[in-house]
Amino acid sequence: MPLSNPSAPAPDDRGQCKTIDLGRKVAAIEGFWQPRVVAEMNDYQFKVVKLEGDFVWHAHADTDETFLVLDGELEIDIRGVPSAAPMLSLRAGQMAVVPKGVEHRPRALGEVKVLLIEPRGVVNTGDGVRTERTAQNDRWI
Amino acid sequence: MPLSNPSAPAPDDRGQCKTIDLGRKVAAIEGFWQPRVVAEMNDYQFKVVKLEGDFVWHAHADTDETFLVLDGELEIDIRGVPSAAPMLSLRAGQMAVVPKGVEHRPRALGEVKVLLIEPRGVVNTGDGVRTERTAQNDRWI
Repeated sequence: MPLSNPSAPAPDDRGQCKTIDLGRKVAAIEGFWQPRVVAEMNDYQFKVVKLEGDFVWHAHADTDETFLVLDGELEIDIRGVPSAAPMLSLRAGQMAVVPKGVEHRPRALGEVKVLLIEPRGVVNTGDGVRTERTAQNDRWI
Repeated sequence: MPLSNPSAPAPDDRGQCKTIDLGRKVAAIEGFWQPRVVAEMNDYQFKVVKLEGDFVWHAHADTDETFLVLDGELEIDIRGVPSAAPMLSLRAGQMAVVPKGVEHRPRALGEVKVLLIEPRGVVNTGDGVRTERTAQNDRWI
């Protein structure tokens, strides 16, 4: 996690009552898999993130999670949902909600820019032990 | 509110675990100011809507509300927040969160396509009496 990667503490306005340009925000991030909060809605956060390559399989026991692709192509492998396809493919302007408790693995084809929407405090690598892929929460941009 | 406007009851999967093409969904709506739910995340809903012209001043006492513009140009007048600009201007790829309790009036410059994110049950015209601008909730597309 490069310390030079721009981030800031939560602003007083929580990113509300202002125009947020998602493309401009995500373009300012230097590293991959390093979510940055841009705004809060009640106890939920909007986070932009740049992705490249495969992430780890994980799940969030207590919450659904939303992926909205801003640029590029994202695949999300899904495990254990007989009624769902085993892999979701998302391009710019497409979104998917992963239900709580469902194991999933995001995979970026090339560089992908994504808007994540989930409750404050969700750990990117899921419940349980933290790994080298675990990102620090509440870093704003 | 044209009865021919396509809508459906909530699907069993609540729009989860599938790819949702926001542009395709919103293009299938026939009327303006008629939100259609495309997915749920916990007790929140993602709604697509086509806007044209001015809406009414209103507020939601209990919840923040998010506007993400998919196409076109949306202005949102804001009342009573000294620290905020009195008008937000949003184009495609830009979003804004209106805080709970804050009076606001969306105004569409031409036809605008928007993704709304807010808790299930929020009334589009705000708290209080229902008007001819009040849309029925929980209509899916």
